[in-house]
Amino acid sequence: MNIDLNKSNVELSEVFEYIDANKELFVGRLIEYLRHPSVSAQNIGIGKVAELLVGMLSNLGFETQLIQTPGYPVVMGRWERVPGAPTVLLYGHYDVQPPDPLEAWISPPFEPTIRDGRVYARGAGDNKGQHFAQILALESHLTVHGRLPCNVLILLEGEEEVGSPNIAEFVRAHADRLKSDLVVTADGPGHESGQPIITYGVRGIAAFELRARAANRDVHSGNFGGVVPNPIWTLVHLLATMKNSAGEITIEGFYDDVVAPTALEREATARLRLDADHVKQELGLVELDAPTDRPVADRLMFHPTFTINGFHGGYGGPGSKTVLPHEAFVKCDARLVERQNPDDVLAKIEAHVKKYAPDVKFVRTESTLPSKTPLDSPFSDVVQHAVYTAHGVEPLIYPTLGATLPDYVFTKVLGTASFVVPYANYDEDNHAPNENITIDCFIKGIRTGAALLDGLGRCARS
Amino acid sequence: MNIDLNKSNVELSEVFEYIDANKELFVGRLIEYLRHPSVSAQNIGIGKVAELLVGMLSNLGFETQLIQTPGYPVVMGRWERVPGAPTVLLYGHYDVQPPDPLEAWISPPFEPTIRDGRVYARGAGDNKGQHFAQILALESHLTVHGRLPCNVLILLEGEEEVGSPNIAEFVRAHADRLKSDLVVTADGPGHESGQPIITYGVRGIAAFELRARAANRDVHSGNFGGVVPNPIWTLVHLLATMKNSAGEITIEGFYDDVVAPTALEREATARLRLDADHVKQELGLVELDAPTDRPVADRLMFHPTFTINGFHGGYGGPGSKTVLPHEAFVKCDARLVERQNPDDVLAKIEAHVKKYAPDVKFVRTESTLPSKTPLDSPFSDVVQHAVYTAHGVEPLIYPTLGATLPDYVFTKVLGTASFVVPYANYDEDNHAPNENITIDCFIKGIRTGAALLDGLGRCARS
Repeated sequence: MNIDLNKSNVELSEVFEYIDANKELFVGRLIEYLRHPSVSAQNIGIGKVAELLVGMLSNLGFETQLIQTPGYPVVMGRWERVPGAPTVLLYGHYDVQPPDPLEAWISPPFEPTIRDGRVYARGAGDNKGQHFAQILALESHLTVHGRLPCNVLILLEGEEEVGSPNIAEFVRAHADRLKSDLVVTADGPGHESGQPIITYGVRGIAAFELRARAANRDVHSGNFGGVVPNPIWTLVHLLATMKNSAGEITIEGFYDDVVAPTALEREATARLRLDADHVKQELGLVELDAPTDRPVADRLMFHPTFTINGFHGGYGGPGSKTVLPHEAFVKCDARLVERQNPDDVLAKIEAHVKKYAPDVKFVRTESTLPSKTPLDSPFSDVVQHAVYTAHGVEPLIYPTLGATLPDYVFTKVLGTASFVVPYANYDEDNHAPNENITIDCFIKGIRTGAALLDGLGRCARS
Repeated sequence: MNIDLNKSNVELSEVFEYIDANKELFVGRLIEYLRHPSVSAQNIGIGKVAELLVGMLSNLGFETQLIQTPGYPVVMGRWERVPGAPTVLLYGHYDVQPPDPLEAWISPPFEPTIRDGRVYARGAGDNKGQHFAQILALESHLTVHGRLPCNVLILLEGEEEVGSPNIAEFVRAHADRLKSDLVVTADGPGHESGQPIITYGVRGIAAFELRARAANRDVHSGNFGGVVPNPIWTLVHLLATMKNSAGEITIEGFYDDVVAPTALEREATARLRLDADHVKQELGLVELDAPTDRPVADRLMFHPTFTINGFHGGYGGPGSKTVLPHEAFVKCDARLVERQNPDDVLAKIEAHVKKYAPDVKFVRTESTLPSKTPLDSPFSDVVQHAVYTAHGVEPLIYPTLGATLPDYVFTKVLGTASFVVPYANYDEDNHAPNENITIDCFIKGIRTGAALLDGLGRCARS
């Protein structure tokens, strides 16, 4: 592959001019798109919006398909007419979160409204506004030049907001048709500073429950205290063997596959200047979690976690009740880093439970592999340069996010480099009332999409 | 004091004959008494029943008073006309538990009904049926002989079912007027075998909450896992320092004041033959609480406990939720044995919390001293012999009950020996629907009361 990023870029500037000239029209069309609800959790409007997307992509000359899954359909489009140029797979999702609580919205969630330079509507940021910007980038290139600079696949699913239950199987089943050189996802909020972001990875997750039972019913703590085992104590003692107060997870082999950050990742995170004081102030904390001297970036990107999401057993009402409860449970999640595997980690946790508290029931509830694309991955420079070109500002590079997305379906199932480039503003309020996207972010998103296509067009396949 | 328990007992046999002859009449009068609700938790009928009791005692020639407290009034009666004879204080309570759930009663709770040799009504066993039996014992002696064999004080409170919040202060304030040689309480269920019981003590209680907070709100376990401290982990690690999995409470000084059982107590508990297998089978347990080799009687009578009554924090609903909660709490009670003091124990627990988890809030919620009357206490033989005389069977001797009652107000505030002699059947279902007392237990209760008065009459004050 040969890239000449510095080559005079006449084609792209024409596309940028076109985008600039059509700003208001594009915002108007976004508003039209956002009027259509597509709430996956409530099965509202999904089919209609999928059909809209099929229409949009067909109109652009994409070979377009609506592909059924056991859940909601996937919209797939392909435009592959530049032999020798790379193929980018653009991923997004056309479903949105439920809009509740409705009364908290200043303008109704499906009556998009412009206020203070922002479009307010459910889906404005997450994710309709972002993949619509990608579609407009494609349209702008096609309108200005009659063709795209590179090959493009577009994959829009309708179940992201309900946990993407079918995406892994879909990608596995259609791996041949999803073959590409890189995946780019425009999703998530950007940085508070307004500086653009590129994310190269996500943590995985291994979630489980521990359930303890002792007697066949609750008993009186006076009549049976000291006689009948207490499942809360059982879980307390078990948990205390799993992670110590210094913050070390003490399950045998838990850290075995953890890969240390590369020099490039260390440099990138140093430039992020993630600030412990800022987090502490924001959340009213005196100290961060143990070990207290670990840098914030390391905590989120390079270390796995073991979080107790909930612990419940016995009496929880007002005052006291002298009960000795007969059952208790904890819900936990472990966030995993490369190259931990949730199946392996869950097996190790299960073995630990069997050893230390054989009567406690271990129940797997969720597992997703971590994902990471190396910072020096082949198309890394192209993506970074495209973001720089569109924004006029160097992007912040996040080797990994703390959270979990099913990004592994691209990096591990398809074996393709994957970049997440958020187009939305940091305060998009996704999943909350008054979700919005700033018009500035939306237009920069279209520009970023356009610059990316242009940059990829300059890469000859090796 | 000189007792001659073997002296030919002409007087008592006449009283027994009278009781036998009036059986049906007594049951009829019990039914009349039980018709009057006196639910302290709901403030129903308390005043009316207190007045009824004042009437009953006055009719017997007792000097009777209704004494106000900050809560419900205490009924006090005194009959002190045998100089040189001992004075017994009879304690009971005239309030009852709420009758809910009403639909679970076969006959309505305040329409006493006889079925299969039992009187079914709220309060039949706990405690109206029992103190009414004591009153009938007094009446029987007075009717047959025109006098009582010893001096008698009777103290009936109206707040036992709401935790006796005023009894300690009442006893302290009226210590002079409550001066007596022994206290006898007829309360609680008897033994499953039907064998009579005498109890010499109760465990105390020290109850508290531990509350942990970290961030000022719940956060996402992906975005903040490894960064933000988790109050559930804080409590798990703190609790694990307070009691180990071998069942040892590891709070410094916790066991300091625990007194080993006396030889007499060991002998008495050996005769009880408390059976681990029976408990295990009844409650569906594979093993008893750690340490698993401790005898059941020791667990309930001679060892303090540390029970977690409830642990709550974070998500507890169906499925998983990747939350990192910002607050959690546990509610605990420690049952105390002689000579532990709840104030001292709570101070030690608080110091432990300060040392190991200074940010965790410690909140005292309840404290009651343990109580124990030595098995070789002066009137012990008299009480045991009275029970034997009434039942024709040797009583089972319990040095201590596992549960907590404010018995210390007699043993520690008044400094008087205190004996609990349950008159009700083991399956009285107190605090539950279909509460009942067998007519056999009720009549044996009257006989026990009568035998006790007779026995005390044979004791000359030293």
